[in-house]
Amino acid sequence: MLDICLLGTGGMMPLPRRHLTSLMVRCSGSTLLIDCGEGTQTAIREKGWSFKPIDTILLTHFHADHIAGLPGLFLTMGNADRTEPVTVIGPKGIERVIAAVRVIAPELPFEIRTVAIETIEASFRVGELIVDAYHVFHRIPCYGYRITLPRAGRFDRAKADANGVPMAYWSRLQKGEIIEAEDRLYTPDMVLGEARKGLTVTYNTDTRPTDLIRKYADHADLFICEGMYGEPDKLDKARGYRHMTMQEAAVLAAEAEVGELWLTHYSPATTRPEQFMNEIRAIFPRTVASRDGQSAELLFEGGKAGESE
Amino acid sequence: MLDICLLGTGGMMPLPRRHLTSLMVRCSGSTLLIDCGEGTQTAIREKGWSFKPIDTILLTHFHADHIAGLPGLFLTMGNADRTEPVTVIGPKGIERVIAAVRVIAPELPFEIRTVAIETIEASFRVGELIVDAYHVFHRIPCYGYRITLPRAGRFDRAKADANGVPMAYWSRLQKGEIIEAEDRLYTPDMVLGEARKGLTVTYNTDTRPTDLIRKYADHADLFICEGMYGEPDKLDKARGYRHMTMQEAAVLAAEAEVGELWLTHYSPATTRPEQFMNEIRAIFPRTVASRDGQSAELLFEGGKAGESE
Repeated sequence: MLDICLLGTGGMMPLPRRHLTSLMVRCSGSTLLIDCGEGTQTAIREKGWSFKPIDTILLTHFHADHIAGLPGLFLTMGNADRTEPVTVIGPKGIERVIAAVRVIAPELPFEIRTVAIETIEASFRVGELIVDAYHVFHRIPCYGYRITLPRAGRFDRAKADANGVPMAYWSRLQKGEIIEAEDRLYTPDMVLGEARKGLTVTYNTDTRPTDLIRKYADHADLFICEGMYGEPDKLDKARGYRHMTMQEAAVLAAEAEVGELWLTHYSPATTRPEQFMNEIRAIFPRTVASRDGQSAELLFEGGKAGESE
Repeated sequence: MLDICLLGTGGMMPLPRRHLTSLMVRCSGSTLLIDCGEGTQTAIREKGWSFKPIDTILLTHFHADHIAGLPGLFLTMGNADRTEPVTVIGPKGIERVIAAVRVIAPELPFEIRTVAIETIEASFRVGELIVDAYHVFHRIPCYGYRITLPRAGRFDRAKADANGVPMAYWSRLQKGEIIEAEDRLYTPDMVLGEARKGLTVTYNTDTRPTDLIRKYADHADLFICEGMYGEPDKLDKARGYRHMTMQEAAVLAAEAEVGELWLTHYSPATTRPEQFMNEIRAIFPRTVASRDGQSAELLFEGGKAGESE
């Protein structure tokens, strides 16, 4: 199960009732955060989720509205007696940003590890999750992220027999364990059928539409994408600042055939994003004009995806 | 007139309905801010005051709950097309802190000037205001600030005549102008009686009680002071972390014979500061358990001090 919360939906600056765009993902006790603008710790508190288990933070890029909440979040995690290290993944230059953050929030009781993405595409394992980073097109280096919770194949007794796997190992292999026996190495694929469809969430803000977005959003269960402006005549402005209109996000969602599109990162001037939904849903019907705190439980097929706010 | 707003009243971390402690002071078109924790820009917006005219920022010390809002505030001031420089005054090391802030918020359209306080006491002129900084007693170097709006004496015709000041200069001198005539230099004191009582606001957080606080709070119209804890048995904790209890703040207010005491910088665990007011007002009756956004207009004697929230 993936527990997803879009903590805020604002772009550029926090507003009294709109936090900056940030995504929180919970999976099996591990918590991952994408972007951390000013006020993200307050948004987490309002949602009632815990910041203490956040072990990985993915940063799309280094504009202040995506990173200025880090010192306060780290300080509060420290005050909550976190001692386990936190890993921050982001574009090249991440060490310099974290060094600056540590000037503002020194003396933390946990280590901050940094991972710089230096390629157009990159892939990481974070607990049970696979995180794919892909370069998007903004004014400074910026990445989108796809988060996948893979799902193993079903137990296949015939395959286990054919591979000569002793019955005593079946259960452990089925759970993903690798077993080194005296005579042989046993791996899960020896007892499992083909991998089944997992869960995928794709997130990008601060970018023009690109082919790589189409690739990583392809058939995602949930596609979270900026919709900075809703008015069709703002397209030139979006092009100039390298942002995306709601129309463009909906076209991407349709092309990638995603399950659902959540719009976010609204311009401060876009006070009522839902006013554009008639037009946007004509392009992609399953579009949500997200509000702060919007959340969903994504379940494997056969389960039911619940949504709550 | 001094327009005062206590934007937030929290210590350590912002809470959903409590911003971090920060004071905004408006005087004759110039705006001054003391401390800028995470979310201060949102608190300003909630109050409906403008951040664009902020030209001076005083920092008490460099703990994140007092400075982490700077990158976001600067970014938003830049987005509002501010081009005039901003001066940031704080303890030694301010250049390093501002350099870190500029890593998070680069490319601002205005200059940030820094002034490091290197002495126990220091005094600055900020527009019409006199700002006195005084070292307090926290875990790292920390300053309190006294803000004074001075009030010139009344026009004294006999004195003007005795000093041989031509009548043509009277009005300009009375407004504070210095006039270089061909034969002589004319200064305002040549036509004015003794300076009258001005307006004084003294602000300190994050400190144990000290003699310098008593000195700078002496007869202040308004004394804004931390009251981290209200429970008497938290005194040892306050001593250990070098903070102050509400009782200690009230004793200081009584000793300094201030006009009014506003408590602030509550511990996150102090959810209802007003529950302690019976006891605290027995020590100093004119104590206010401040709430976010509490504001007052301070007027010269003969005017009336209005309060609003």
